[in-house]
Amino acid sequence: MTTTTGSAIHPADWTELDARAVDTVRVLAADAVQKVGNGHPGTAMSLAPAAYLLFQKVMRHNPGNTKWAGRDRFVLSCGHTALTLYIQLYLGGFGLELDDLKSLRTWDSKTPGHPEYGHTDGVEVTTGPLGQGIGNAVGMAMAARRERGLFDPEAAPGQSLFDHQVYCLASDGDIQEGVSSEASSLAGTQRLGNLTVIYDQNQISIEDDTNIALSEDTAARYEAYGWHVQTVDWVNPSDRDGAERYVENVEALRVALEEARQVTDRPSFIALRTIIAWPAPNAQNTGKSHGSALGADEVAATKEVLGFDPEQTFQVDEDVLAHTRALQQRGRELEEAWDAEFARWQEANPERAALYARMAERALPEGWDADLPTFEADEKGVATRKASGKVLGELASRLPELWGGSADLAESNNTTMEGEPSFLPTDRQTKMWAGDPYGRTLHFGVREHAMGAIMNGIAVHGGTRPYGGTFLTFSDYMRPSVRLAALMKLPVTFVWTHDSIGLGEDGPTHQPIEHLAALRAIPGLDVVRPADANETVAAWQAVLSHTDRPAGIALSRQNLPTFPRGTNGFATTEDVRRGAYVLKDFGDGQGEHVVLIGTGSEVQLAVAAAEQLAADGISARVVSMPCREWFDAQDDAYRESVIPAAVRARVSVEAGVPQGWREIVGDAGRIVAIDHYGASADYQRVFAEFGFTAEAVAAAARDSL
Amino acid sequence: MTTTTGSAIHPADWTELDARAVDTVRVLAADAVQKVGNGHPGTAMSLAPAAYLLFQKVMRHNPGNTKWAGRDRFVLSCGHTALTLYIQLYLGGFGLELDDLKSLRTWDSKTPGHPEYGHTDGVEVTTGPLGQGIGNAVGMAMAARRERGLFDPEAAPGQSLFDHQVYCLASDGDIQEGVSSEASSLAGTQRLGNLTVIYDQNQISIEDDTNIALSEDTAARYEAYGWHVQTVDWVNPSDRDGAERYVENVEALRVALEEARQVTDRPSFIALRTIIAWPAPNAQNTGKSHGSALGADEVAATKEVLGFDPEQTFQVDEDVLAHTRALQQRGRELEEAWDAEFARWQEANPERAALYARMAERALPEGWDADLPTFEADEKGVATRKASGKVLGELASRLPELWGGSADLAESNNTTMEGEPSFLPTDRQTKMWAGDPYGRTLHFGVREHAMGAIMNGIAVHGGTRPYGGTFLTFSDYMRPSVRLAALMKLPVTFVWTHDSIGLGEDGPTHQPIEHLAALRAIPGLDVVRPADANETVAAWQAVLSHTDRPAGIALSRQNLPTFPRGTNGFATTEDVRRGAYVLKDFGDGQGEHVVLIGTGSEVQLAVAAAEQLAADGISARVVSMPCREWFDAQDDAYRESVIPAAVRARVSVEAGVPQGWREIVGDAGRIVAIDHYGASADYQRVFAEFGFTAEAVAAAARDSL
Repeated sequence: MTTTTGSAIHPADWTELDARAVDTVRVLAADAVQKVGNGHPGTAMSLAPAAYLLFQKVMRHNPGNTKWAGRDRFVLSCGHTALTLYIQLYLGGFGLELDDLKSLRTWDSKTPGHPEYGHTDGVEVTTGPLGQGIGNAVGMAMAARRERGLFDPEAAPGQSLFDHQVYCLASDGDIQEGVSSEASSLAGTQRLGNLTVIYDQNQISIEDDTNIALSEDTAARYEAYGWHVQTVDWVNPSDRDGAERYVENVEALRVALEEARQVTDRPSFIALRTIIAWPAPNAQNTGKSHGSALGADEVAATKEVLGFDPEQTFQVDEDVLAHTRALQQRGRELEEAWDAEFARWQEANPERAALYARMAERALPEGWDADLPTFEADEKGVATRKASGKVLGELASRLPELWGGSADLAESNNTTMEGEPSFLPTDRQTKMWAGDPYGRTLHFGVREHAMGAIMNGIAVHGGTRPYGGTFLTFSDYMRPSVRLAALMKLPVTFVWTHDSIGLGEDGPTHQPIEHLAALRAIPGLDVVRPADANETVAAWQAVLSHTDRPAGIALSRQNLPTFPRGTNGFATTEDVRRGAYVLKDFGDGQGEHVVLIGTGSEVQLAVAAAEQLAADGISARVVSMPCREWFDAQDDAYRESVIPAAVRARVSVEAGVPQGWREIVGDAGRIVAIDHYGASADYQRVFAEFGFTAEAVAAAARDSL
Repeated sequence: MTTTTGSAIHPADWTELDARAVDTVRVLAADAVQKVGNGHPGTAMSLAPAAYLLFQKVMRHNPGNTKWAGRDRFVLSCGHTALTLYIQLYLGGFGLELDDLKSLRTWDSKTPGHPEYGHTDGVEVTTGPLGQGIGNAVGMAMAARRERGLFDPEAAPGQSLFDHQVYCLASDGDIQEGVSSEASSLAGTQRLGNLTVIYDQNQISIEDDTNIALSEDTAARYEAYGWHVQTVDWVNPSDRDGAERYVENVEALRVALEEARQVTDRPSFIALRTIIAWPAPNAQNTGKSHGSALGADEVAATKEVLGFDPEQTFQVDEDVLAHTRALQQRGRELEEAWDAEFARWQEANPERAALYARMAERALPEGWDADLPTFEADEKGVATRKASGKVLGELASRLPELWGGSADLAESNNTTMEGEPSFLPTDRQTKMWAGDPYGRTLHFGVREHAMGAIMNGIAVHGGTRPYGGTFLTFSDYMRPSVRLAALMKLPVTFVWTHDSIGLGEDGPTHQPIEHLAALRAIPGLDVVRPADANETVAAWQAVLSHTDRPAGIALSRQNLPTFPRGTNGFATTEDVRRGAYVLKDFGDGQGEHVVLIGTGSEVQLAVAAAEQLAADGISARVVSMPCREWFDAQDDAYRESVIPAAVRARVSVEAGVPQGWREIVGDAGRIVAIDHYGASADYQRVFAEFGFTAEAVAAAARDSL
């Protein structure tokens, strides 16, 4: 099908300038991609009216302050059509200028290939890996409700200054990714009335017509999730093959968006049927137009269709820009009115206002960690997951911004703050879980990936700090979102329990082997594996004191001995925050020296081995290394004080793959590790069978000497 | 709700012994978990009638030969209820005995915590990580169709000896995972009439009542995917609170299964509403019964309800076992009848029979690699993804067992064998993709995770060999399935293109940084990163010669110079299969020596650096290391011949994180790597800005000397 001409139905307040502005968007999209020679012009062209409607007419936001807390949020889940966003940011005056569009996808520009959070004003979240944005938007909508519950729970629906809408634009690709399915199902359960997803159903992806891979009735699927579903069809499928049938019914979309806003008991899904790259005469409705420059001829032809000068590039009429930049004044007025309301709220709610101010800066309150538990020395000890649960319980009253839950493993992950209500629509409560829409305990269901994307959305939305739990082995399921948390430097915390073959009976599919190494490979992620209960406390302290990066805490299923801190030569946990520290020096300091470096549940093996070595006259230092990233950030002097360069005999012990440990132990060192999959049996047996014993560590130490 | 008594409706041919056998299943499940002290009894109890019906009455299989090609397949997607499968394998006589059930979840038993492929006869696929099994089952159903197309395309539907059914049992957890959503949507598009998923909708998961996280209408969702959907409700929701309402209507399930079998133009979904752990008087319908031993009292109480001796454990009446083991005779007869048909087919189809025999052994045909392309030396060169595409094109006629495609990136991944038809229902063809139900080019849609699970299902099903492509950065999306491929040792091949910051303009979300390291961390996965077009050819040769493990081939988007193989001191590609080899020794062999080790697109930098060093009188050896796993498998002598221990000056260069390279370069070595995220710009600029230059490699070499 090729549709060379079409028509449009505009809202009543739509002027000639609006129409011209929309066509300007299309021309800019084609020009920007053509200039750099690569990129995604098609969707930015066909979605021009939708994006313009949202940014100029529907959303409440202020180009002058992209961080205004009262703004509606916009998530471009289909990040490849970055121009859809950039051009609106330019037209609306959010900080981008024409030169920025001209430098699309080039070094150091404000307009990288995909929108990057923290890089370009007005980009709410980094998107590009498909499906994530829908999960982020769900998280934002959840965060908005939780924040409202903290700050203004008594206000009537729609009457709070903390009420706003989350808009998400999604593509055929987003719709296919499992993470969006997971998040959308949960959004239905959560009745997120503040969320609207617009699905650009152009039925073209990189392999062209999506019929080869996507034939589902997506609208019906979203109805099954419990969403409010509308379809706005610009393609007119009842007569799709005819010419002159494409009708950009902007008014219908406006009405649908308004109806979506008014539906407050369910998230809204608007399937918007479009023709990609419309009205490019030849490129429209092709996979090529999705991800390639149109070519000079087609760009020119498109300009002619739209009444633009084919000889000019980046043509923006002055009156068009003046018209669209009027958004700055409207936005300023919106925010000013909100500010006045906010001032009244502050005065009426001094305590909440203080919390709001603190959270806005991500500052921790004085004495926030005063009540944290300490654990008595105990040979039998306690599982670090359990210690973690106690920490969370103690933090509950001090840190209202902290909230989280689990992907259906609450009791195993010890992620529930005791006594705190669940974050649930009232009618979703169960015998086991009481709660309310402003609750605190999150139930993600068996959806690790959505959990990750949702946590990211929560963290970018406002001042709350989310955590989420699953088994360490299932960090794989959420890995794309973990990476994005690190890329965006978001302070989210992953609680990954059952962190080794120590998981025992569930066997190889559930026993992480490569996961610690694989997670450490992610730039900007702190991987923290505490050795005992008290290290777990200190680990949480350190993690929460960082606000510029995510962390994953790897915790044991099995009990670990609690070391006698500050007595008998054992260090306190003060230096846990430094990533590694001397837990204890064994032996008389004479004779040969060896450094034994352990993490988590294997530190006890290093201790036991050191005792054996000391009995043989070898001075063995045990270093606990809960976080390699934190240790790497220490200065040389501190690192030398922990692992002296002169001591070449070194052993690392960690129940994971050896990868990465050579950097620590050096050429002369030995690595006690596991480079194959685990087995189903009780954990003591598994550890012994796979060589995780004090004897093996001691033997490795002798070998290293 | 507690239902202390219930009733059952059985098929007409169902005897007292059948009923007793079903109750025996429940008792064995409770006993086995109680004995080991942990596990998942609940579902195995409540699904006992369904599993028994399938194994004893519905499925065509032979306990005496679990590899019979004509068998129906059974996938336990909810692998935690391993007992559901193990007890049927015991009752049917597939190789498990009572002692095996007694050693559930213990070291070296045949009954590990989750079913493991290759470990226990009758386990078709390793399951446990939720959602994977549904994806595997979809892959099996696709493989069955493809195999039928290879061997018996002319037979009428249902009339081929290669026709059989794939049954999959799934839980509330499987249904929530995104991978199952992805796979199910694709199964609808593919019209997989040979697939039946039974969804055990007990609405209990680890966090108890699933209402907190799962409120969607799952049956309606599957209708939206285009499946044939039936509901069999044993809970009687119209009067769910009443006692004595649980009706195990086995006949209704049988009818539904039969109807599902007869629907051949769509996959079938049967929502089976059950009460978990029924009829345990107190544990039923609780989250506890999902994942914990019931306790001695509850086990005893359950036995009393069922008329078993509460004092006895593992009680199996002799006549019950004799009755269920009669399946062995029935199975033998089934297979014998099939074998006779098969013999006739062999005689009538000698060529196909030869192919069948070859594929059954995963043997490669003589001369299979005779036509592989070679590439002339060329400074400008060719992208390795493009070379890979040429290899696939040449293999198309030689290896009919090889098939694959992409997750919507066919043209970018170069995964299409030119001229081969798509694997598609006829009505799903598009302008760009012609095909048929027996086609060869797979279109996974934007569903990397399902692609992984489906490839695993294809590989366990029969003799075909699947490959699937996406960008390397999105290997994260499919990582859980990649791990399972490695754990199961399946010969599937991942084609991961755009393998570094060399991807360029799409920027940080699309540029892999940590992925090579993270994938190398997975035990049993070969990560192969060829340096030029000819290495790509040799890489495919080596990968396909392995049948006992998966491989991922990392390929460049950008052109790489084609080295002058066998001339001018450059090695041939003969030793690519050894994982690393001396590409060329530069310099006169006098003076200082340094070894430069590169992979993929960075080998050219090592070559250029070596030229600079040689000009300065330093003898520099360039080692190309396309696969560390293959190199690790070589003997010491070979490894020493490539990287001599005496040469301590070493430099590695790879556009990825440094993690893992210390093992190769040693304490004195230098690692040229990138430990942060990339940037959006043309690739030359990105490489230069991030220090990937010949000068940087040469400087590192001097530093290392």
